[in-house]
Amino acid sequence: MTDLTMLGKKAKKAARVLATCDTATKNAALAAMALSLRQNTDRILSANERDVAAAREKGTGDALLDRLRLTAKRIDAMAADMEHVITLEDPVGTVLDTIHRPNGLSITKVRVPMGVIGIIYESRPNVTADAAALCIKTANAVILKGGSDAIFSNLAIADALREGLEGAGLPADAVQLVPDTDRAAATALMRLRGYVDLLIPRGGAALIRSTVENATVPVIETGTGNCHIYIDRDADKAMGVSIIVNAKAQRPGVCNAAETLLVHEKIAADFLPLAAASLEKAGVEIRGCERTRQIIPCTPATEEDYATEFLDYILAVRVVPSIEDALSHIAAYSTLHSEAIVTENDETADYFLRHVDAAAVYVNASTRFTDGGEFGFGAEIGISTQKLHARGPMGLSELTSYQYRIRGNGQIR
Amino acid sequence: MTDLTMLGKKAKKAARVLATCDTATKNAALAAMALSLRQNTDRILSANERDVAAAREKGTGDALLDRLRLTAKRIDAMAADMEHVITLEDPVGTVLDTIHRPNGLSITKVRVPMGVIGIIYESRPNVTADAAALCIKTANAVILKGGSDAIFSNLAIADALREGLEGAGLPADAVQLVPDTDRAAATALMRLRGYVDLLIPRGGAALIRSTVENATVPVIETGTGNCHIYIDRDADKAMGVSIIVNAKAQRPGVCNAAETLLVHEKIAADFLPLAAASLEKAGVEIRGCERTRQIIPCTPATEEDYATEFLDYILAVRVVPSIEDALSHIAAYSTLHSEAIVTENDETADYFLRHVDAAAVYVNASTRFTDGGEFGFGAEIGISTQKLHARGPMGLSELTSYQYRIRGNGQIR
Repeated sequence: MTDLTMLGKKAKKAARVLATCDTATKNAALAAMALSLRQNTDRILSANERDVAAAREKGTGDALLDRLRLTAKRIDAMAADMEHVITLEDPVGTVLDTIHRPNGLSITKVRVPMGVIGIIYESRPNVTADAAALCIKTANAVILKGGSDAIFSNLAIADALREGLEGAGLPADAVQLVPDTDRAAATALMRLRGYVDLLIPRGGAALIRSTVENATVPVIETGTGNCHIYIDRDADKAMGVSIIVNAKAQRPGVCNAAETLLVHEKIAADFLPLAAASLEKAGVEIRGCERTRQIIPCTPATEEDYATEFLDYILAVRVVPSIEDALSHIAAYSTLHSEAIVTENDETADYFLRHVDAAAVYVNASTRFTDGGEFGFGAEIGISTQKLHARGPMGLSELTSYQYRIRGNGQIR
Repeated sequence: MTDLTMLGKKAKKAARVLATCDTATKNAALAAMALSLRQNTDRILSANERDVAAAREKGTGDALLDRLRLTAKRIDAMAADMEHVITLEDPVGTVLDTIHRPNGLSITKVRVPMGVIGIIYESRPNVTADAAALCIKTANAVILKGGSDAIFSNLAIADALREGLEGAGLPADAVQLVPDTDRAAATALMRLRGYVDLLIPRGGAALIRSTVENATVPVIETGTGNCHIYIDRDADKAMGVSIIVNAKAQRPGVCNAAETLLVHEKIAADFLPLAAASLEKAGVEIRGCERTRQIIPCTPATEEDYATEFLDYILAVRVVPSIEDALSHIAAYSTLHSEAIVTENDETADYFLRHVDAAAVYVNASTRFTDGGEFGFGAEIGISTQKLHARGPMGLSELTSYQYRIRGNGQIR
C-alpha cells in the first residue's frame, strides 16, 4: 500500500507554497490545468475505456456505466467547469474583522486556506477535476481518494492536472490522487493526523458512517438527506402537489430529494387524492400511515420507512394532527439537510422556520434547491449536514479558515 | 454507568426549547442561575470540602488543592462571571447574509445555536458554571463531564444552575452534568452521535488525543500550545528580552506560553547573553542547540525538547541562519496555536505573518495575548488549535452554527 504519510508530507509542503500565492497565480494555474485536461483528452479517454471495460465485465448496469463513461465532450465540460472557477471571487486574504485593543495591539482576522484537504468520493470521475479546482482556487493542497471503478480515469485526470500545475510553476503535489483503491487506503487517509486539516467524504451513508467512525482528522459530514415536505392546513393545494412531485420525482437519487410527506389532518382528505394522482403519474410508490390509507389506497408505511433515505421513486406519507406533530416527526427523523412547509399562513411559516433544525428550511419551495449552484455560490464541494464549520451547500469560503494577525510594539502581559 | 443516551435525549429536548428563546429570556435565566449559585453557597462549599478532603487524602499537592478549593468569595466571583455574560451581545438570530435569486427565492443565512454541546474538562470547578453560562447565552444545551477530583463540587454547582434555570421557566436539562467520573463515561460522551452537535475537550494533551481518537461526534481540539518566539536579525533586543521573558515565565503552565526561542544567527551573540540573564532571574532553565551553547552556557537541547510543550520554567533555544529556517522549524514543531516574531523590519514582519500557519501570529508582542479576554471577546470557551469552524480564542459566536431560511411562492426545479 502507498505510504500516505509521504503523500501527506508532500501535500503539506505544497500547501505552504500555495498559501502565499496571489489570486492571479492561482487562476493561471487553473487555466493551465484546464488546458492540460483538453490536451490529454486521448490519454484520459483510453484510461476511461479500461475502467468502463472492467465495469462492464463485472456486470455493471447501464446507468452506472453511463456515469462512469467519459467522452471528449465531457472532458471539455470538465475543463470549462475549471475555467468557470477562475471567474469566482477568491475568498483568501479577506479581512473578516479588525480589533484595536486599549493596550495598542492591532488584531486582524484574515481568511486563510485550510491547508490540506482530503476528499473521499465514489462518484463520477469529473469530481477529481471539480474538487481539485475548488481546492487550488482556495490555495489548499488536496489529496483525492476516488472509487475503484474509476481508478484509471481518475489517475489520468490527476496526471493531467498535475502537469498543468507544474507548467504554471506551482507544485504538482498540490493535487495528489491515492493510487490504492482499497478500504485500507481510505481509512489511512481518515487517520492522517498532522497532515490533513479537513476531510470531506462525498458518497453514500455507508461512506459517511465509516468516515465518522474511523477519522481522527476533522471531518465535514455531507449529503445524507432524509427531507420532509409538510403540507400545512393552510396550504395552497395545487402548490403543494407541484412541490411534492418536484421534490420527490424530479431527480429522486439526490440528497435534496424529499423522502416523507407530512400532511395536516384538516387538509388531508382534500390534498392526498390530488397528490396521489400526480405522484402516481410520476411513477412514485406511496407508503402511508393508517390515516393516509383511509384516504388513498397505498402500501402501509413502517417506522423504518420514515427513517429511510429511499433515493428512489418511493414516498412515505403521514397524516399529522398539528404542526407540532409535524415538527416532532421532523425532529425525530430529519438528517438536518432540507425541510419544507407549504402554507399560505405567514405566522405558521415563521413558526416552522424558527422551529426546524436543518441546514435549509423552506417555505413554499421545493427542497431540491439546496445546492451551491441554486444558492448562487458558483460552485459547490458538497452539502454539509453537520453544524460545525459549514452547513448546507459549501462553496469556496467553506474551504477556508481564518487566522488572527496581531501587531504590537512590545506589549507583554 | 449512567445511560448517556438518556442525557442526550433530555439535552436535545431542552435544546429545542432554548432555540426559540429570545435574548431577554436567556439573560433572565443567567441571572437566576447566578442568584442560585449565591443562594447555594453553603451547599456548594460543603460538597467542595468532600472533594478537597479526598484529594488531600490522595496526597494531592498544595497547588492543585488550591485550584480545587472553593470559598464563598470564589463562588461569588463565579456568579459575577455569569452575570457578566448577560452583558455580552447575543449572536443568535443575527442575519449573516441575504440572497435574492433570479427565480424569486429569498435566502436568509441566520445564526442559530449548535444544539447540544458536550464539554469534557479537567480543571477547576468554576468551569462548570462558566461553560454553562456561555452555552445558555447561545441557546445551547450542555452536557458537562468534569474531572473526578471535583465531582462533588461540580454536582453541587450543576444542581444550583439547574434550580436557577427551572426557576426562570427554562428546562433544567439545558445543563446536565455526567455523574460518572470514569473514562468510560467520557468515551460514551465522545460517541453520543445524533445527540451531541459539538464536543469541546478542555484539558491536557492526553485528553485531546483520547477525544480525537475516540470521538464520532464533531470535535474542536483546544489548547495544545507549542509556541515559538523568533528574534529576527533586525529585532529590538530589549523588546525581545522583555517578550521572551513574559511569554515564557509570566505564567508557564498555560497554552499560550512560549516553549522555544529561535534566534537569528546575526543577532544571537548579542541577544542570547541578555536574554539568558533575564531568563535566569525568572527561574527559567535553558536547553540550547550547539550554536546556542557556544554563546551561553546551558543544557543541550534534544529533538524531543523542540517538540515538547513544557508548561514549565524550561525553554528550548535554537540559533537559525535565516527566517526561512525559523519558519521551517515552526512548521515542523508548531501546534498551530500562537507564534511571534520580534523585528523592526516591516517587510520581514509581513513575510512572517503571511508564512506562519497558526491561529495567532504576532509581531512584536507576547504570545500570552491569545486569550478571549485579551482579544476583547468578553468570554472564552477555549482556544481552538484546529482550522475547522473556529481558530484561536472561541467566544460566543463560535458556539453557534447557521441555517439557510428560504422563502418562495411555489418554486420548483
